[in-house]
Amino acid sequence: MTAMTQTRPLKGEAKDALKALLAPRSIAILGASSDFRKVSGRPVKHLLDKGYKGRIYPVNPRAEMIGPLKAYPNVAAIDDDIDLAIIVLPASEVLNCVRELGAKGVPVAVIFSSGFSELGDAGRKYEQDVVAAAREGGVRLCGPNCLGLINSFESVLATFSQYADSDTPSGPIGFVTQSGAFGTAIAALARRRGLGLGYFVNTGNEADLTFSEIMGEVIRDPRIKMGAGYIEGLKGGEDFVALAEQAMVAGKPLVMTKVGRLGAGARAAASHTGSLAGDDVVFDGVVRQHGIIRARNEEHMLDIAEVMSCCKLPEGNGIGLLTQSGGAGVLMADRAQEVGLSVPVLQPETQAALQKVIPGFGAVGNPVDVTGQFVADPNLLLESVKLMLADPNVDVGIVWFQLMEAHVDKLVKVLVEIRDQVTKPFVVCWVAAPEAGVLALRKEGIAVLRGAEPAVDAVAALVQYAEMRRKWLARREHKKAIKLPKLDLPSKGVVSTMDGVKLLDQCGIVHIPTVLTTSADEAAKAANKLGYPVVLKIESPDILHKTEAGGVMLRLTDEAKVRQAFDAIMANAKKYKPNARLHGVVVQAMASGDTEFVIGLQNDPVFGPVIMAGLGGVLIEVLRDVVFRKVPLCEGEAADMLDALHGKAVLAGVRGRPPVDRKGLIEMICAVSRLGAALGPRLSTLDLNPIMLGETSATAVDWLMMLDEA
Amino acid sequence: MTAMTQTRPLKGEAKDALKALLAPRSIAILGASSDFRKVSGRPVKHLLDKGYKGRIYPVNPRAEMIGPLKAYPNVAAIDDDIDLAIIVLPASEVLNCVRELGAKGVPVAVIFSSGFSELGDAGRKYEQDVVAAAREGGVRLCGPNCLGLINSFESVLATFSQYADSDTPSGPIGFVTQSGAFGTAIAALARRRGLGLGYFVNTGNEADLTFSEIMGEVIRDPRIKMGAGYIEGLKGGEDFVALAEQAMVAGKPLVMTKVGRLGAGARAAASHTGSLAGDDVVFDGVVRQHGIIRARNEEHMLDIAEVMSCCKLPEGNGIGLLTQSGGAGVLMADRAQEVGLSVPVLQPETQAALQKVIPGFGAVGNPVDVTGQFVADPNLLLESVKLMLADPNVDVGIVWFQLMEAHVDKLVKVLVEIRDQVTKPFVVCWVAAPEAGVLALRKEGIAVLRGAEPAVDAVAALVQYAEMRRKWLARREHKKAIKLPKLDLPSKGVVSTMDGVKLLDQCGIVHIPTVLTTSADEAAKAANKLGYPVVLKIESPDILHKTEAGGVMLRLTDEAKVRQAFDAIMANAKKYKPNARLHGVVVQAMASGDTEFVIGLQNDPVFGPVIMAGLGGVLIEVLRDVVFRKVPLCEGEAADMLDALHGKAVLAGVRGRPPVDRKGLIEMICAVSRLGAALGPRLSTLDLNPIMLGETSATAVDWLMMLDEA
Repeated sequence: MTAMTQTRPLKGEAKDALKALLAPRSIAILGASSDFRKVSGRPVKHLLDKGYKGRIYPVNPRAEMIGPLKAYPNVAAIDDDIDLAIIVLPASEVLNCVRELGAKGVPVAVIFSSGFSELGDAGRKYEQDVVAAAREGGVRLCGPNCLGLINSFESVLATFSQYADSDTPSGPIGFVTQSGAFGTAIAALARRRGLGLGYFVNTGNEADLTFSEIMGEVIRDPRIKMGAGYIEGLKGGEDFVALAEQAMVAGKPLVMTKVGRLGAGARAAASHTGSLAGDDVVFDGVVRQHGIIRARNEEHMLDIAEVMSCCKLPEGNGIGLLTQSGGAGVLMADRAQEVGLSVPVLQPETQAALQKVIPGFGAVGNPVDVTGQFVADPNLLLESVKLMLADPNVDVGIVWFQLMEAHVDKLVKVLVEIRDQVTKPFVVCWVAAPEAGVLALRKEGIAVLRGAEPAVDAVAALVQYAEMRRKWLARREHKKAIKLPKLDLPSKGVVSTMDGVKLLDQCGIVHIPTVLTTSADEAAKAANKLGYPVVLKIESPDILHKTEAGGVMLRLTDEAKVRQAFDAIMANAKKYKPNARLHGVVVQAMASGDTEFVIGLQNDPVFGPVIMAGLGGVLIEVLRDVVFRKVPLCEGEAADMLDALHGKAVLAGVRGRPPVDRKGLIEMICAVSRLGAALGPRLSTLDLNPIMLGETSATAVDWLMMLDEA
Repeated sequence: MTAMTQTRPLKGEAKDALKALLAPRSIAILGASSDFRKVSGRPVKHLLDKGYKGRIYPVNPRAEMIGPLKAYPNVAAIDDDIDLAIIVLPASEVLNCVRELGAKGVPVAVIFSSGFSELGDAGRKYEQDVVAAAREGGVRLCGPNCLGLINSFESVLATFSQYADSDTPSGPIGFVTQSGAFGTAIAALARRRGLGLGYFVNTGNEADLTFSEIMGEVIRDPRIKMGAGYIEGLKGGEDFVALAEQAMVAGKPLVMTKVGRLGAGARAAASHTGSLAGDDVVFDGVVRQHGIIRARNEEHMLDIAEVMSCCKLPEGNGIGLLTQSGGAGVLMADRAQEVGLSVPVLQPETQAALQKVIPGFGAVGNPVDVTGQFVADPNLLLESVKLMLADPNVDVGIVWFQLMEAHVDKLVKVLVEIRDQVTKPFVVCWVAAPEAGVLALRKEGIAVLRGAEPAVDAVAALVQYAEMRRKWLARREHKKAIKLPKLDLPSKGVVSTMDGVKLLDQCGIVHIPTVLTTSADEAAKAANKLGYPVVLKIESPDILHKTEAGGVMLRLTDEAKVRQAFDAIMANAKKYKPNARLHGVVVQAMASGDTEFVIGLQNDPVFGPVIMAGLGGVLIEVLRDVVFRKVPLCEGEAADMLDALHGKAVLAGVRGRPPVDRKGLIEMICAVSRLGAALGPRLSTLDLNPIMLGETSATAVDWLMMLDEA
């Protein structure tokens, strides 16, 4: 903590406004009520009851007192600096209220009120007016349409969430949620598990402060070890990427659930938050690229948060499974392999040592089955977990057992001993666990999951994060060293084939030799030079659908056919569109290689220029097997894209084909990514489709590029 | 119940032995101990304490009394008929013990003892000896290496499972598990949810009685509404299919979790149970074909069991989602679509009616967001759920809310009112629910799930089961009408191309015209008749790899090339394998169509002849996108196979291609399935690869068949 936190936050400076939001030294509640069951009374009650140490100022012109506190007619009447204002007024009064806060110099307000952009166009306009007034007055806003926030370290209960009705234990997890009701449920589930949330913030409509800005401030707190987030529609892709970067630098994992993956989901998200759901497949790619763990749902998120906040990072993906039940071992081994973990057979030495401690009807391979005998002999558990984790191929362990109502103390004791004696991370999977056992282990900082699959999934996330972090550290310098090409750009609209060639050349993107010709003689000459067979295509800014126009002729095998084709294409084009400007006919060689690939660029509304990669044919057209990333990319990131394709085995060679030129393909992905980054806002779309991959070549065969205005 | 149950079960008759196992009127415990904490004492204690109404006979030569009961030196000394014997003796004593039971005329025994096939070859031999002795004496066996069974209706606690340490409430779910420890955990989880298990049976090694036989008897009990099973390695495919059929006839759903899906999993299953894990993809196909719901894991299984045992079957796949949180609605809508449910936009009339009861900041489309307002006004919930379910496009509903500690009674009351007033099924998803609320709803027969995704998944299973049942009812007569072809079969080994042609013709499987020729003249004549281009292939029982032998020449476009090719192929073959018997050269036409398909048959060790179908190319070779079914198939089942392919869109036409001849393909699948069924044990393998699909044709282009001994 610097001296800064001791001085009054400067008007409108975001960092200080965020500090004031999350750790205010004084709070005014505008619209406070003395009925503590009401939304307008609950924050007052919570702040009073739960030990908030700052000053509390209820504002209500119709009251003398709110509970034990003096009520003020307006903020101006408060003779103190206010760090945070809570607005609990009808939407119609919020605009004036924000103006008053600006006049008073209040740096930040959280707005509970609903009746803004979530209602549609009229509400959106009013919300914009409120934001404009806030900007003018130097007030930052959290919400509107949110249920506030909790800083459980300093007992800041600026919320009317049901979650605050009981204790809100503090802990190393910072939780930020766009949904109030669902966020409340998640927080309550965390509390039931004994997981403490250092922060709980509901960002609501995010008219001003975004999820990313608030999460960034949350994880800046040294007491916070990781962030957990619930997202419905992301605003500000750059902020989000900056947050991911900040979290990686700090070594604080982020785990997020985002809804709105599909059609009906996206429809509901739009009607609910008024925010753009964005393209989920892009979000997914950007999240993976930046080392954020994505959780499927609330329980998955909490499982991961629990493991992340308890375990250190494993050094590899080898998992050791130890159970009292062969069946649970099989279930976990199945799942481990499905989610990319390795279940190594233990080394002969390890197996021999285990054989000495485990009954004969157990198993020592991995999964290790210690049998129910460990209940009578806890030392058996201690020794076998130690042996399993000591195996050089095991990086992380799961210890599975069930019930044991009568043996809670004994089990907790031996698990604490294990934790003290091993260096590799492990988690406990305790099915139908007695609550006392779960809470006792949590208190000891041991992660305890409730089922075999959830345990494996959470460990997989831990392994995945560890690997992402290793990669991120190794790639930092490569990323910084990326140099963008200087481009000589044509104007807005569809880029001609030959202008495309220039751009590809400026970026070092390998493409098929391409010559523009304006007569049959020139075409024949070009074809003779390129070598047969060749392809001829009409070149005209006015003809987009070349094949439809009879403007494409393939596999021309000699000069006579080329001359004939030139004339035919020109004639077809004139007939197809009499007024079209015809720049001539492009002559192209045929590419070698017989595996098709596709690379594309597009300008995502949230994240800006993103790159797409996928294998051609049914994989992309039927199975939509594509991967997105934000540009530009280093080689490692491009390789990750290929490894994320379901059909990646095609690249290694199938049906008797040799492997494709992976290195050349990775170079091309990187080069296209640099093109995308250099284009920036000028990018509309680019498709390299197909790219032909051979054993030693990766060659763009066709390209279509559109530019936006400069 | 017939009079049969009142008389002594006949020696060795399976049905009566199963009755004696699950509802014994007298039980002998061999190896009973008076230490009630021990495995050998616990069943005695449980039977005494929990109200078992039958006669209990402890057998222990070293004791006078076991607890309050007289102990007997051996079974012969018991002056009564014994329905069930529990064996709790060291493995070495089991063989003699089983002989004594045979002499006494005891129809069935459950063997707790371990030390049999789970230990490997020696144990397997001993287990076989025990089974042989049991067969000889007319004794059926459950186990060994199991922890027994519970019939909670009649308080038969023939078990040492921890699950029996507390109450074992009865209910409409019958649970049979191959794993003891994991099964115990699942039973305990069910109890925590308030789900009663009418039966709990652990089948252990299944040396004699199988999972399927026991589950069959369980669901024969009219008090049982559905079966839940946990499987590690299935024995007896025919029994399993018969069980599925019995369950469908009775209208009692079966839900099963099976482990051993992948490599390391299968390894552990083998070391654990000594049972053959089988090919999981075959199991999966057979299960779907026969209307069994497969659950991913224990919680998924219990979610499904809960919904199945509470809800009637929906008439379609339209789901209505009603929440107090937009976010939860989005999450559920996403998931619903992922698992094949439809989330219909509600009709304008429904939306208008909802608008009258729901606050303005809610949503009425679907998901319906009633907002938190329903807490103050439960009638809002009642009215809006009724309106949503009344929408003609909605077949089943989910009602989502969270927490509500202070409102449990009110909510339970309104949900019961809803149940009483609606006709369509619905489930409650109550996140972070107070336990009292969950148990109160369960008592009312209302399914209550703990999370958005689990709720959707369980409803999806209900919808899936309803659809499978509708299909099963519609297909019953078609299945019965299937007529198997009469086959004229060659001897064991690889079937020659021309013998293959005969078999395909006998089954009505469309294949490419194929002529065997023994001279260049004949080949030329055949080619002229078939039309060009043609393919020539060597025909020899001694050359399996024809291409490698230079024995295949493709795309021959005229007579001269055919003559040349004939001579070249014969010469190549002689050179490749001088002693090979050369029957000549086969001439084939080229098939029309440009979509490749593959159909195969194989003899599965568990299920017998099964058929496989998949799209050619990367879909089958890289993504292993194939579907299996047990033969023979009716047309509906063949259509289901196509619909289960991930790449099924290819069949509808991609990249500008027209749809393929789906009807012809379905006919071919059916015809091949009949061939497989007719081959029966003679089947080794058959591959039709490729089959070329065109707009109006489905033609087998190449086939390889191997037969087993007659």
